[in-house]
Amino acid sequence: MPVSEILVVGSLAYDEVQTPFEHRREILGGAASYFSLAASRYAPVRIVGVVGEDFREDDLARFRARRIDTSGIERRPGRSFQWFGRYDYDMSTAETLNTDLGVFQHWRPRLPDAHCDVPFVFLANIHPAIQLELLDQVRRPALVALDTMNYWIEHERATLEQVISRVDVVTVNEAEARQLCVTFSIIRAARRILEMGPRALIVKRGEHGAMLFLKGGGVFWCPAYPLEKVRDPTGAGDSFAGGFLGSLAAGGRLDDDALRRAVVHGTVCASFAVESFSVDAIEGATADAIEERYRGLRALVTIGAETLAEAAPPPPHG
Amino acid sequence: MPVSEILVVGSLAYDEVQTPFEHRREILGGAASYFSLAASRYAPVRIVGVVGEDFREDDLARFRARRIDTSGIERRPGRSFQWFGRYDYDMSTAETLNTDLGVFQHWRPRLPDAHCDVPFVFLANIHPAIQLELLDQVRRPALVALDTMNYWIEHERATLEQVISRVDVVTVNEAEARQLCVTFSIIRAARRILEMGPRALIVKRGEHGAMLFLKGGGVFWCPAYPLEKVRDPTGAGDSFAGGFLGSLAAGGRLDDDALRRAVVHGTVCASFAVESFSVDAIEGATADAIEERYRGLRALVTIGAETLAEAAPPPPHG
Repeated sequence: MPVSEILVVGSLAYDEVQTPFEHRREILGGAASYFSLAASRYAPVRIVGVVGEDFREDDLARFRARRIDTSGIERRPGRSFQWFGRYDYDMSTAETLNTDLGVFQHWRPRLPDAHCDVPFVFLANIHPAIQLELLDQVRRPALVALDTMNYWIEHERATLEQVISRVDVVTVNEAEARQLCVTFSIIRAARRILEMGPRALIVKRGEHGAMLFLKGGGVFWCPAYPLEKVRDPTGAGDSFAGGFLGSLAAGGRLDDDALRRAVVHGTVCASFAVESFSVDAIEGATADAIEERYRGLRALVTIGAETLAEAAPPPPHG
Repeated sequence: MPVSEILVVGSLAYDEVQTPFEHRREILGGAASYFSLAASRYAPVRIVGVVGEDFREDDLARFRARRIDTSGIERRPGRSFQWFGRYDYDMSTAETLNTDLGVFQHWRPRLPDAHCDVPFVFLANIHPAIQLELLDQVRRPALVALDTMNYWIEHERATLEQVISRVDVVTVNEAEARQLCVTFSIIRAARRILEMGPRALIVKRGEHGAMLFLKGGGVFWCPAYPLEKVRDPTGAGDSFAGGFLGSLAAGGRLDDDALRRAVVHGTVCASFAVESFSVDAIEGATADAIEERYRGLRALVTIGAETLAEAAPPPPHG
């Protein structure tokens, strides 16, 4: 399998983000932005999304500069998605202060025909009914991953479970895994989610790393990359997904070990994302920097020389 | 270096423990109890401690059944140390509802002469001035580790820093590391603690595992053993220390990789400790069960066959 293309369907937004230390307004955000800039380090990416009249041409140019296909981004009358979130001193979970969906609100994505055959698909956090419609549009994908959020678990559980049953990989954070399965135990929650159908579940635990649960019982744990300073946690999960799918699309294998390696790449991409506001740090991450952090993460769990032979990541793209 | 002896100086207590699910009274606890029962799976252990008239002969017999030397346990008029703690639904940090130090309060340990040459020493959580006195009594130890708590960091900082400068390994939890160094960043805190003198710092993060910081910059991160059910977190840290020092005493090596392996053994012992109230589960852990969890923890971070060649732990003792 050569390097394959990746499709992401998700939000393109302008964020306002407040931490105890800084406050930024009108910065490029949205799941598709973080995802695509991370994934584009590994493989060609196409975005399907919607923006309003206010969306800056400069920001679209940033995607194109990373050879991301933006032909699936519709521009519509109205404002782009706006999100305002605040982090407390723990710098982990955002409190949403305001959301203005703008043109995103009534958007029903239609995939351009050329996008329907892209083999790697990421359904970013969006109404599960729309995720279902997208699944009906893609043709024989090699791997589909989805993200979701507490709101859909609470209000659209039946539809969400239907989507989950039709994808290969589910990514959620710890609280969402617990909420979805109504149990505190992550292990029990993981078992139940895998019983719904997917081959793999990734539970993102922020500064505590990520766990991969595989159908058949395998479990893999990757620590977070130790950073002295986290500046803005926004986009960590979508950047993770970008590194994860990017690594799979680039690596040409989909076996369990490929998924494990992909989790390490996801962790690397998330570590860049949180070092800056907006997408700046993940946009600026070089292939060398990615490789260095991959090796650093493997070294963190290494005793003796055991893991280092394995540590070479697939060569990032572009 | 053959299997070496281990000395622990610390509390022997009766605990009352309340979780959202269960409530137990008058159960065997104390740092020295958890530590010694864990460490005794690997190497011979001597306890130095103090108990009151109420301390049950049966409980001393439990130590002796594991060939733990109890000749350094003094019995004094009065009551044994009593601790009453409660855990909330997160089942992580205890809220202390009551502490009655009893005979522990005015105890100044004197090491019996035979105990002064024991090569591996664990100074469990106790007044740092007493830890200093003990350091003056031990002769050329191979390795000394200490534990402490928020109270001493707040009230006896200068003395505590003096002790830290004289030991090889410091074990603290995440909050204590932050408090000791007045910084949120665990990485910065680790650097400062290592600058005080020790060769290694272990930061215990409960369900998120443990990190080992080595002088010279090495970092190792071991995940917690994934358990479906945690019944009582009490004693996890002391059991960790028991597995850590036990593995070093048994393994005959003190290089950085030996410390990394010891962190995995510490994690294994902590995983048993939290599966029962009191010391029951760590007391009942067999050599096979320990080895199985060691392999399980290494498998959690393994991609392909890379780590399994290494995964054989030193053969537990007894």
